[in-house]
Amino acid sequence: MALSGPIVLTDNRYGKAENRVVRFYKENARHEIRDVNVSTTLRGDFAAAYTEGDQRHVLPTDTQKNTAFVFAKRPGLDTIEEYAIALATHFVDTVEPVSSARIDVESFGWQRVSINGSEHDHTWKRQGPDVRTAAVTVAGSGADRQTWVLGGIKDLVVLKSTGSEFADFLTDEYTTLAPTHDRVLATSLDVGWRFAETAGFDWDEVYAGIEATLLELFATTYSKALQQTLHAMGTAVLERFPMLAEIRLAAPNKHHFDYDLARFGVENAGEVFWAADRPYGSIHATLQRADAPEAGLAWLP
Amino acid sequence: MALSGPIVLTDNRYGKAENRVVRFYKENARHEIRDVNVSTTLRGDFAAAYTEGDQRHVLPTDTQKNTAFVFAKRPGLDTIEEYAIALATHFVDTVEPVSSARIDVESFGWQRVSINGSEHDHTWKRQGPDVRTAAVTVAGSGADRQTWVLGGIKDLVVLKSTGSEFADFLTDEYTTLAPTHDRVLATSLDVGWRFAETAGFDWDEVYAGIEATLLELFATTYSKALQQTLHAMGTAVLERFPMLAEIRLAAPNKHHFDYDLARFGVENAGEVFWAADRPYGSIHATLQRADAPEAGLAWLP
Amino acid sequence: MALSGPIVLTDNRYGKAENRVVRFYKENARHEIRDVNVSTTLRGDFAAAYTEGDQRHVLPTDTQKNTAFVFAKRPGLDTIEEYAIALATHFVDTVEPVSSARIDVESFGWQRVSINGSEHDHTWKRQGPDVRTAAVTVAGSGADRQTWVLGGIKDLVVLKSTGSEFADFLTDEYTTLAPTHDRVLATSLDVGWRFAETAGFDWDEVYAGIEATLLELFATTYSKALQQTLHAMGTAVLERFPMLAEIRLAAPNKHHFDYDLARFGVENAGEVFWAADRPYGSIHATLQRADAPEAGLAWLP
Amino acid sequence: MALSGPIVLTDNRYGKAENRVVRFYKENARHEIRDVNVSTTLRGDFAAAYTEGDQRHVLPTDTQKNTAFVFAKRPGLDTIEEYAIALATHFVDTVEPVSSARIDVESFGWQRVSINGSEHDHTWKRQGPDVRTAAVTVAGSGADRQTWVLGGIKDLVVLKSTGSEFADFLTDEYTTLAPTHDRVLATSLDVGWRFAETAGFDWDEVYAGIEATLLELFATTYSKALQQTLHAMGTAVLERFPMLAEIRLAAPNKHHFDYDLARFGVENAGEVFWAADRPYGSIHATLQRADAPEAGLAWLP
Repeated sequence: MALSGPIVLTDNRYGKAENRVVRFYKENARHEIRDVNVSTTLRGDFAAAYTEGDQRHVLPTDTQKNTAFVFAKRPGLDTIEEYAIALATHFVDTVEPVSSARIDVESFGWQRVSINGSEHDHTWKRQGPDVRTAAVTVAGSGADRQTWVLGGIKDLVVLKSTGSEFADFLTDEYTTLAPTHDRVLATSLDVGWRFAETAGFDWDEVYAGIEATLLELFATTYSKALQQTLHAMGTAVLERFPMLAEIRLAAPNKHHFDYDLARFGVENAGEVFWAADRPYGSIHATLQRADAPEAGLAWLP
Repeated sequence: MALSGPIVLTDNRYGKAENRVVRFYKENARHEIRDVNVSTTLRGDFAAAYTEGDQRHVLPTDTQKNTAFVFAKRPGLDTIEEYAIALATHFVDTVEPVSSARIDVESFGWQRVSINGSEHDHTWKRQGPDVRTAAVTVAGSGADRQTWVLGGIKDLVVLKSTGSEFADFLTDEYTTLAPTHDRVLATSLDVGWRFAETAGFDWDEVYAGIEATLLELFATTYSKALQQTLHAMGTAVLERFPMLAEIRLAAPNKHHFDYDLARFGVENAGEVFWAADRPYGSIHATLQRADAPEAGLAWLP
Repeated sequence: MALSGPIVLTDNRYGKAENRVVRFYKENARHEIRDVNVSTTLRGDFAAAYTEGDQRHVLPTDTQKNTAFVFAKRPGLDTIEEYAIALATHFVDTVEPVSSARIDVESFGWQRVSINGSEHDHTWKRQGPDVRTAAVTVAGSGADRQTWVLGGIKDLVVLKSTGSEFADFLTDEYTTLAPTHDRVLATSLDVGWRFAETAGFDWDEVYAGIEATLLELFATTYSKALQQTLHAMGTAVLERFPMLAEIRLAAPNKHHFDYDLARFGVENAGEVFWAADRPYGSIHATLQRADAPEAGLAWLP
Repeated sequence: MALSGPIVLTDNRYGKAENRVVRFYKENARHEIRDVNVSTTLRGDFAAAYTEGDQRHVLPTDTQKNTAFVFAKRPGLDTIEEYAIALATHFVDTVEPVSSARIDVESFGWQRVSINGSEHDHTWKRQGPDVRTAAVTVAGSGADRQTWVLGGIKDLVVLKSTGSEFADFLTDEYTTLAPTHDRVLATSLDVGWRFAETAGFDWDEVYAGIEATLLELFATTYSKALQQTLHAMGTAVLERFPMLAEIRLAAPNKHHFDYDLARFGVENAGEVFWAADRPYGSIHATLQRADAPEAGLAWLP
């Protein structure tokens, strides 16, 4: 079945990745900070650059970088979603060969430094490891204009010391795992959600509400498996936030193994664990409303 | 447009990630080494684990780990592609609820230590940073059985000190980049290729040939853009290896900026550069034969 | 000056690094968590292991690992300093060839999950990136017993958007930097402090107080250089915590460069910056009380 | 024993870290590449910058960066040791307040791309993970001038599949490790060596010879412990290279655990291992000639 057909360029894209933009608002003595990592990706009529090295349709990635910084000033970085929508729209509207633009933003958290209980005006401490994300894709013009917005959180590391079991599972000749009715459940969540609409709510409030919902359901769900916990988290988010169409959750099962202290005459009643690095379980779930609009280009990298 | 439809679980998958398996062949005094990172991913009838915490269809990821290690012994790790095919087939064939299995393998290079020109029998030095990859997906049974094989190389870092330019590009109000007719071109390639067939050739030979082709075309293509270089690399690979259906190339443009020494009365004729970290250009290309079979589940993570 | 003297083994040490111990306290429904990374290092009469491969004096690193986990149960991990003192003392007291033992602990922060304002009993969210550290060295026996305790914090990332300048510096033929009277000051602090005593205070309170002092002085010091800020921070810590003998501060100057928007007719009044990765300034300071006891083995790795 | 003495600044230093300098030699069609990471550190009369924010003695780290790039052009980067000596000497000789300067260099390996057996003139592939290092300290002037040179290699990852055991070790109540008479020995070496002289030999030849010696002794030493292997490596290096005064070796014991396949009726005769991440053994050794000159500032960071 050796192939002999002509070779064709199918998907292609290019952009500038990881522009580390920091934007301050200094209208008042109490400054505000936005600390983001911005990546731009353009799709369109760029085939000649690949096939012939013809750059006449290629807006340099250096220009995209400049634009990302300019847009941080105006319209500004009030919310990362609006910034990304503006930037993506700019590329589609003003750069002729661009058919769609995607803007990825990571937003790093900073906590105002407190001194004797009062917050400092212009000093912050970095807060993590969780990172807020957004990914906006804009395509088409005029009546065909479409805008997809994804929100997300990644590296949200959570752990519960009880309220989790794993038992009654399928077994085969290679199964040696003992069932457990009380274990540590720990994961580092990467979650993305797709908005069905782009107006009529406050982006920052929705983000805060989703994070709180994820944490609440992780805590309060008695877990028979990480799968079940993810499902409960995703369901609650969609139920509470009707502007969302879909949610995707990825979660490593960060194993904590009971350390066998009985060998030394010491009891270990779920108190001492070894936190392992690799391998780890890897669980994924996507939940969606039955009446969700098509995802279109939303998840296209 | 607030949504109110019922919430449904759509895609889901689970598995054990990053099993660090090392396999030696010791039949002779001259040992052989295979050093791999194996991840297993299962899809199938697992909805009840999500919706109700019912594990009766869930083969533990711990069992998948055991299986990955057993299969390293037999059938063994002669080539990573055959190992991955065997492991994926096992899960689909023997675990009732599994509809498809994907096995990802990273293979780390080791070079035999040489002492006064002769290779040592059982001592190696790690070789990198490039890593060989494979990803096999098996689905269905009987007449519906399908097997997709991807090969790949990642972190292949290459650089050329001349033979590259970037000029005659599109400009707009935010363009400040000066055209250049002689620059450093450097990238860290991540490349994946899809096989149209799974027999009739030597996996290791094909891998070596593809890496050599990528390096050769990177070196010998006079580059008007990284896009053009990727296209030349991908085209040559498909032309030389008729068992391939498709190739996908991702390449950061690792910028090397001329350091301005003229300020100090020192000439810099393309000799001294600053190697920047971020941001970087990000270029992607997919090439495919017109008569390639459908990709199916091949690229599904 | 080619040398021909006999070759001698001088310093040597060995241990088990990065034991990832997680300890829960479950006496009440409201659980407590300690998440630490423990490394053990032994010095002593181990020369024969090096020179002849004679292990008779060598307590396996595997045993050291077991011991680190056992000690997490009892005496327990109430404070990392007391745990490390107990563990180091154990090795010196019970392992004949050991002359000194050092225990390094990294302690990772977890924040209790809040649901509608009330803290959950057994669920936490990881908090960072700053990490609390301790390093305890115990040597000698009987009247010669000595115990050194270091505390520390690392990866404490802080930033201020004003209140920092850099001007009136030394210049030479290679100086191109313009003086600035208002800049962003950002760093990632690694700080260690040496205790002059090991009792009579609360370890956790002292740690919290030192972190608060570091943050306060970073915020409130008008900075003519990062050097000055470090000095102010270190001085305040020693002044406020009389149980400390010495403090060492290391701080990369994480440069934030004004992005030149004037090229595009856009004003940038200290609002938009590029956060660079490399190179970065690197500033170190050690402060000590004049009447501090000798450091002895305290800082020996 | 609360302390009340005045607080004094003791050690301090500053510099520019991680200047990523790439230098090409293009005299001929066959170009040469030097890819290095350079860090500069100055010690001297800088107390006023700390205590009063007075920068009049402070040469900006930005200037140090410029200088590192200028020196890559001239005198150039023929060898990293000579480059570092020139750069350190420059700072001590021309910057009044500087009493000593240390230059750290990491040198990244590149292998010329081969096409059908012939090496390409201006294209390379990155080679690693091992990195060559140098650290030069220059202090004093005139008759008091002193120059210390360290060479080194780091991230030299090596493995042997047999020829290693660990048995007859000390045991205590927490020992559970079984002795083994045939195991995998793997480590990632970080080695530094101190030169007793700085002329009369070829720096690159010595480096290549030391790396070859390290590899040879790792391979050919029957190892009763990693300690013994380190000692053999260090001894051989000092014996073969009389221009060296001292060598320091640090080596994690990267554990490879036999995977228990007997549970599945499968024999595992030292063929299938799990390569663990953490914890790991950590072994250090320093060897020195009895007639070595004092180390002075050589190892001061």
